[in-house]
Amino acid sequence: MTELSNLVAESVERLRRDNPLVQCLTNIVVANITANVLLAAGAVPAMVDNAEESEGFASAADGVLVNTGTPYRETAEAMVAAARGAASSGTPWVLDPVAAGMPWRTQVSLDALSVGAPAVIRANASEVLALAGTAASARGPEAGDTVEGALASAAQLVRSYGTAVAISGPVDHIVDAHRHVTVSSGHEWMTRVTGVGCSLGALTAAFAAVQSDHVIAAASATAMLCVAAERAAARSVGPGGFAQALMDELFLVSPDEVGERGGLRDVTA
Amino acid sequence: MTELSNLVAESVERLRRDNPLVQCLTNIVVANITANVLLAAGAVPAMVDNAEESEGFASAADGVLVNTGTPYRETAEAMVAAARGAASSGTPWVLDPVAAGMPWRTQVSLDALSVGAPAVIRANASEVLALAGTAASARGPEAGDTVEGALASAAQLVRSYGTAVAISGPVDHIVDAHRHVTVSSGHEWMTRVTGVGCSLGALTAAFAAVQSDHVIAAASATAMLCVAAERAAARSVGPGGFAQALMDELFLVSPDEVGERGGLRDVTA
Amino acid sequence: MTELSNLVAESVERLRRDNPLVQCLTNIVVANITANVLLAAGAVPAMVDNAEESEGFASAADGVLVNTGTPYRETAEAMVAAARGAASSGTPWVLDPVAAGMPWRTQVSLDALSVGAPAVIRANASEVLALAGTAASARGPEAGDTVEGALASAAQLVRSYGTAVAISGPVDHIVDAHRHVTVSSGHEWMTRVTGVGCSLGALTAAFAAVQSDHVIAAASATAMLCVAAERAAARSVGPGGFAQALMDELFLVSPDEVGERGGLRDVTA
Repeated sequence: MTELSNLVAESVERLRRDNPLVQCLTNIVVANITANVLLAAGAVPAMVDNAEESEGFASAADGVLVNTGTPYRETAEAMVAAARGAASSGTPWVLDPVAAGMPWRTQVSLDALSVGAPAVIRANASEVLALAGTAASARGPEAGDTVEGALASAAQLVRSYGTAVAISGPVDHIVDAHRHVTVSSGHEWMTRVTGVGCSLGALTAAFAAVQSDHVIAAASATAMLCVAAERAAARSVGPGGFAQALMDELFLVSPDEVGERGGLRDVTA
Repeated sequence: MTELSNLVAESVERLRRDNPLVQCLTNIVVANITANVLLAAGAVPAMVDNAEESEGFASAADGVLVNTGTPYRETAEAMVAAARGAASSGTPWVLDPVAAGMPWRTQVSLDALSVGAPAVIRANASEVLALAGTAASARGPEAGDTVEGALASAAQLVRSYGTAVAISGPVDHIVDAHRHVTVSSGHEWMTRVTGVGCSLGALTAAFAAVQSDHVIAAASATAMLCVAAERAAARSVGPGGFAQALMDELFLVSPDEVGERGGLRDVTA
Repeated sequence: MTELSNLVAESVERLRRDNPLVQCLTNIVVANITANVLLAAGAVPAMVDNAEESEGFASAADGVLVNTGTPYRETAEAMVAAARGAASSGTPWVLDPVAAGMPWRTQVSLDALSVGAPAVIRANASEVLALAGTAASARGPEAGDTVEGALASAAQLVRSYGTAVAISGPVDHIVDAHRHVTVSSGHEWMTRVTGVGCSLGALTAAFAAVQSDHVIAAASATAMLCVAAERAAARSVGPGGFAQALMDELFLVSPDEVGERGGLRDVTA
């Protein structure tokens, strides 16, 4: 295995050994699959997303996810508070700015970013463009922008917030100021089941809790989910069977297999 | 195939080709299965249900679902706003007045209806009666009223709002001012998995986005879900396996099979 | 079969015959699996958890669940109102004080308890300790406290509120002022799927609607879920397949098998 593959395999081992507590402020559509992905992978989910408790809990958690899929007045307030709690106590947090480009929720993400730098911003190409102020889509999360076309905007987010950025697409690109990694594994059915991408954000927060190199953390989460997805698709006839097999495979896949079959590549120039 | 079956098969083809964007303002119990039903069938879900964004998004979406399963102060406000946004921009929207008969949520449905006519009202018999002012149930969505007994109230809703009405039951009846169609397919386990009926509302909004004859749209959604359910039940031992097989079969079923096996009948006198 | 096993088997028969309507005020993560567990077991779920309707609905329902997994301002208000509605009309209600120990939500549980005694408090050991004022955990629901260590606190809750208390763990303990029952069945994957414990709270409310001895009601719910879990695990490779098989087995398991294989024991001195 390459050095990158080894680092990823070690991160998976650490996740399963340390069972990090991951606070998720996420959307009503995917809260269930997100919690199940974390449990199957070896982490412990806690969906504390109200305005009274989110800041304090973020100080005690091992990792925090802020996902703007279905923000409401109270939970939007709680998201900014969670970012503040995470930042003030050094808890790594991940921003998944779902459907950034819609003005109100983009502001929620920017407000969260203003109180403390995240470990990772995980998004698709159009959300990265929107967050960097390059473009805005009125039609939400399913965008036609390419990952490669969003790399310049990702670099800008890296500079502005001192964060890693993970852009998901047919090939995922993960960058920070020092490194550029690609992950080319996975299966098309990952986009035919709601919440697979959102769960990747939560899994990234789980890995950020056990791996301080946040590019490696994001690469580990992506590779683990993608390899599990390939295994799940191989024994399914459609997206329904795939969704439940994915949980089995996150539970069953070995750290070495994630490292070896993840399609991991360090493309840093 | 009959003309009706052909129209339904063509609608299924169109859904899979056009991948309409369907905004869902629905309840916390079924948001996940609703999004997965849309994805499996070929549509693109977006659960934008907050008061800041719902009206604007309804103008940009291809179809909108308003489902009153778990209304809250903010989401109830968002539902009326979404109906307004849909009506003002000509986006077809579907009302699923879950548990109409309970006074507060009945008023939410009536408020939504007052800002613009929906393409389809999809409901069970007791909800149709309640919405038409004929009866009210204090115990919620599981009612003993018969579909046939609700046809007069459905006709009244058709006249009042210029909408189609789809009444679900052992045999589904779909009516507008010109036509009366029945769909007699499906499986009893559809009532043993939460959200199958609610997902039908979302699928109806997806079909209304690609089929301007809204009786055909509702008949297509009903037949597609029912035929997929029959296929799913045939390879399941209980409601758990059925629920995931249903997603597979929505993905796999052919347009012609939906038309042929849907139990579709035009009973217009 | 022992007398206890017979009482449990009879309760399962009654649940399937009477199909009680169970109002659930629960969290966004588990609302779906909770409704599906109730449907598979034979009850009828209704997730009425808004502040406008919860009190009135609790008067009409057969059983009520209050679960503090993801409380918000409005739903916390609705929880206390539901407890009031249940208490004033004699509807049995169950409190599942998820993550009690966190101050705000602990207060929500105490406020609900102050308006009327529940039939059952269902919790893990650390939540029982926290509710009794013995301890408080900042990290939420996954606690290291043992069931046996929480029995004194459970006895205190029994005295304070005239309720039964069901403590879940490797062996479940269920107590009231007169009886102490243990249930030692189940499978470790019950903790690898989110919402199994929360669903047990809802199933306990369903049984409390058909069985006025609330220790027997809680024992029946626990044994039914645990026996179904054992059957489900026996035909699954991981937590994903297990989750859906669990629904099948709740639907398929016979009353006698629940009584016989539930690992039920009356340990009253």
